[in-house]
Amino acid sequence: QKAGQLFSGLLAMNVVFLGSAFICCMIFNHVAITLADVWILLSILKVVCLCWIIYYLLGTSRQPHAVLYRDSHAGAIWIRGSVLLFGGFSILLNVFQIGYSTILIHCKSRVEILFPAIGIIFICTQAYFLWHHSKDCIQVQHNFTRCGLMLTIATNLLLWLLAVTNDTIHMEIESQLREVERRFAGKAPFHIPICNETTLCTCPNTTMCKVFQKGYILLYPFNTEYCLVCCSVLYVMWKNVGRRITHHHVPDTKPKFKVHGVVFGPLLGAAAVIIGTCVFMLYQIQTTGLVPSRQTFVMYYSYYIVLLPLMSVGAVIGTIIHALEKKELDTLKNPTRSLDVILLMGAALGQIGMSYFSIVALVATDPGDLLNSLILSYSVLLIFQNITQNVFIIDGLHRQRFVAAPEAKHTGHVGQHTVAAELPGEEETTRSSEQEHTQTSPGKEEDTKDEQNHETYNQRRVSVIELGQEIRKASLSYIHSYSHLSWKRRALREISFFLVLCNIILWVMPTFGAHPAFENGLERSFYGYSTWFVIVNFGLPLGVFYRMHSVGGLLEVYVTA
Amino acid sequence: QKAGQLFSGLLAMNVVFLGSAFICCMIFNHVAITLADVWILLSILKVVCLCWIIYYLLGTSRQPHAVLYRDSHAGAIWIRGSVLLFGGFSILLNVFQIGYSTILIHCKSRVEILFPAIGIIFICTQAYFLWHHSKDCIQVQHNFTRCGLMLTIATNLLLWLLAVTNDTIHMEIESQLREVERRFAGKAPFHIPICNETTLCTCPNTTMCKVFQKGYILLYPFNTEYCLVCCSVLYVMWKNVGRRITHHHVPDTKPKFKVHGVVFGPLLGAAAVIIGTCVFMLYQIQTTGLVPSRQTFVMYYSYYIVLLPLMSVGAVIGTIIHALEKKELDTLKNPTRSLDVILLMGAALGQIGMSYFSIVALVATDPGDLLNSLILSYSVLLIFQNITQNVFIIDGLHRQRFVAAPEAKHTGHVGQHTVAAELPGEEETTRSSEQEHTQTSPGKEEDTKDEQNHETYNQRRVSVIELGQEIRKASLSYIHSYSHLSWKRRALREISFFLVLCNIILWVMPTFGAHPAFENGLERSFYGYSTWFVIVNFGLPLGVFYRMHSVGGLLEVYVTA
Repeated sequence: QKAGQLFSGLLAMNVVFLGSAFICCMIFNHVAITLADVWILLSILKVVCLCWIIYYLLGTSRQPHAVLYRDSHAGAIWIRGSVLLFGGFSILLNVFQIGYSTILIHCKSRVEILFPAIGIIFICTQAYFLWHHSKDCIQVQHNFTRCGLMLTIATNLLLWLLAVTNDTIHMEIESQLREVERRFAGKAPFHIPICNETTLCTCPNTTMCKVFQKGYILLYPFNTEYCLVCCSVLYVMWKNVGRRITHHHVPDTKPKFKVHGVVFGPLLGAAAVIIGTCVFMLYQIQTTGLVPSRQTFVMYYSYYIVLLPLMSVGAVIGTIIHALEKKELDTLKNPTRSLDVILLMGAALGQIGMSYFSIVALVATDPGDLLNSLILSYSVLLIFQNITQNVFIIDGLHRQRFVAAPEAKHTGHVGQHTVAAELPGEEETTRSSEQEHTQTSPGKEEDTKDEQNHETYNQRRVSVIELGQEIRKASLSYIHSYSHLSWKRRALREISFFLVLCNIILWVMPTFGAHPAFENGLERSFYGYSTWFVIVNFGLPLGVFYRMHSVGGLLEVYVTA
Repeated sequence: QKAGQLFSGLLAMNVVFLGSAFICCMIFNHVAITLADVWILLSILKVVCLCWIIYYLLGTSRQPHAVLYRDSHAGAIWIRGSVLLFGGFSILLNVFQIGYSTILIHCKSRVEILFPAIGIIFICTQAYFLWHHSKDCIQVQHNFTRCGLMLTIATNLLLWLLAVTNDTIHMEIESQLREVERRFAGKAPFHIPICNETTLCTCPNTTMCKVFQKGYILLYPFNTEYCLVCCSVLYVMWKNVGRRITHHHVPDTKPKFKVHGVVFGPLLGAAAVIIGTCVFMLYQIQTTGLVPSRQTFVMYYSYYIVLLPLMSVGAVIGTIIHALEKKELDTLKNPTRSLDVILLMGAALGQIGMSYFSIVALVATDPGDLLNSLILSYSVLLIFQNITQNVFIIDGLHRQRFVAAPEAKHTGHVGQHTVAAELPGEEETTRSSEQEHTQTSPGKEEDTKDEQNHETYNQRRVSVIELGQEIRKASLSYIHSYSHLSWKRRALREISFFLVLCNIILWVMPTFGAHPAFENGLERSFYGYSTWFVIVNFGLPLGVFYRMHSVGGLLEVYVTA
């Protein structure tokens, strides 16, 4: 097993290195290796992956005893949902690209229609494959399947790398264009069409072309997310190849997502989202205008400085509640969760690294200035927020479901049981206290009527009262413990719901083009253009992925709280 | 336990990020943050680590029940030996630095004497600590110890980062100087003194100063290695905090390193080392001269092209023998080995990545040229060699000692037992066949003398012959299996000894200044100066560390084969 993993890992490593060397060549030496060469390499990889996926769907998975076990933790519904969602947007992106290339066919080669077409087929097949087979623990053709999975992972990673570098190159072009515009600002503000591939080819002034162009720019971020999500699902599948799951794992728990019972989290979160959207729109209007004003940045950073401490406090309280709960830790082997933890920590590194670079730059220049001090506190708070949120999510992912597992064998529906566990508990206690009343009141009637068998009655009465007291005591402690548990649960749910909404807005803002770390120009002038560009280039896509991934993690914490 | 690991990991991450942001600032913006600032930060970290180490030595480790278990796999003798060796060189380096600064005291600040002094104390204390406590599985003050260890790891990593960037900056300066020299070559070849800190301060023409300067440059690589080795030992200690080892682990196996029994490996390896040294000296003489000629590079790459296939073939044969042996795999938890595997794979990435970048650059330019095709095949072979050697070492590390473990309980000396296992085996078989003879020959004498109890005798004789045949059969199969095993063992030892020597020479060459990837100028002109510089900056120190680390791994394979 180890040998197979090692071999397929080496295969993927070689493919990734070769591909990234190609992409780097393309970036640093446009003449020797063009974007078309990179596309040819990636298309070949895509076709090979397609062949393997089709073989898997039609051959491997249909063999007898191929899929004996399914990993219930793998391929959660929101992961698969996001694969479909981002896959859909990526297909749309490719359609736009085809349309755009068709309009500009006079100055583009025909191959630029072929590549997106291959891309569409690849995305469709892969999404179908991941939707249906993400839980598989395949038991036949181990090594071949591992190699296929690793090749697909490598292809997705390379697609992501290309998308990220292309995206940031696009950002760079835009930023340079804006500077050009700024210089001409006093004279005649004119519009320079942004063209992704070649600057020779300009878009004719038709609505169709503008729509394609704008859609292309808007949909681009989804493509990068799609590649990363696919990678993580494929990696879990790779870890699950040949895995035999004991029956302890088997109960297919599907906790349902229900909103009832939480009030403050959604309200606060919605407020954050609404204010964030306003801030984002103002920011976008201001920065796409000619001179991004200082006030825009002050507004943007102030929003963060208000929001981030709230999120950190929420995460800290959540962690404390987790510690109070003293639930049993779930220490069973679970590749999905290990990957989640690694991805959370790894993706956070991008944001944290960028923040530290900002801090050093700002402290070294002039921390007294208003904007500088705002950015400084923003960076410090961001680091703190990332760390506390990671601790909260990791803690939450390790305390799961397994409290309900022993009871689950009787009831059969674990998920509904854990979610609805509060209500039957309280019903039971009210019923038992009613029973208690009905037991003690006949006792009083008997007291006045019969006096002959006083001794025996007294004994009975004492025992009845004792029984009643005991039942009352038990039910009180039951109510107490339940309301106690329910209070903790409710707090956890409020917090995680709030954090989910906050992370969504913090995910939307950089995804759709708010890059203040690049646009404010402070760090850029400190480190120099190209160095800061490389840092942002590493940090920003990871930061975006981090927000998306923590939304997934927080949803899991919410559902299982 | 997980919480403590998470917390200390986060601490180290933050320290590392802060420090690397400082170092990057220093590189890209000399004005705002100077080398002195970075040294102040590192000295503070060193002092904090020193305090913790002293507290550990005097406080924590002397508490009752502090060290109940010791991890026998951790802190192998060559690891601790290399800590001492590299530590010694690093101290010498710091002494030279102090001497150098003292001579140039008129133009340098006094702080530049203080920093190396702190460095010396830190290196001494750390080396003492690692020599005596690297096997500890500490059972008290878990979290505090974890934080201390992680802080020390972070400090070492930052020292490494600073050393690497400084080293390469030094390389860059040298390379630029050489180009300047080359331009003036026709007119008057003059000598530009290499000054590491500031170009304002030049060395007076005394022998002392020259010695300090040259020694400083020569000893520099050892310092980087020292930091990395310390990091790996400290990491294993960190993983062992709070670990309870079952008695299955306890037998303190110390296989001895014996050379006898291997012939071809040392011979071939020594030849490789001698030829390599000649090539390296010729290369150094040529490249430190004014115009590094084409022939120098052809010679250098040809040496590699001859050596690398030999090494790859050796590693492949070794892997096949490992597969044939069908020893039980050692799957017990062993942090040292997991770390070894990760470090091997991770460090190989540097070399492999650089090779892929070379390949793409060379294929894109002109693969027909003699030197280009040499570099191309060198790169391909290097990738292949790295991968095969990694597979061989990882395979070897997982097949260990545990065959001898059940017998070890009786003999007590496992290590000597496994090493000397061949001889007693063969002695036993000869003894048993002698016994067989003495048993059958009295049978023949009885045959001629007694005839009265023929029936009973015949039965006895048949049974004796049967017994004899069975013993002979068993002993034959014993001899067969033993000579078989011994043949395999001998081959494994020959191969690993050869690979050890090859890796030593491949480690020495880049460590002492042969950087053809930078000096041949082909990739540099393709990717542009700064990009290729960054790539080499990442790849080269990892490559050097890889060679050193694989020497350790191969020695382990040799001893346990």
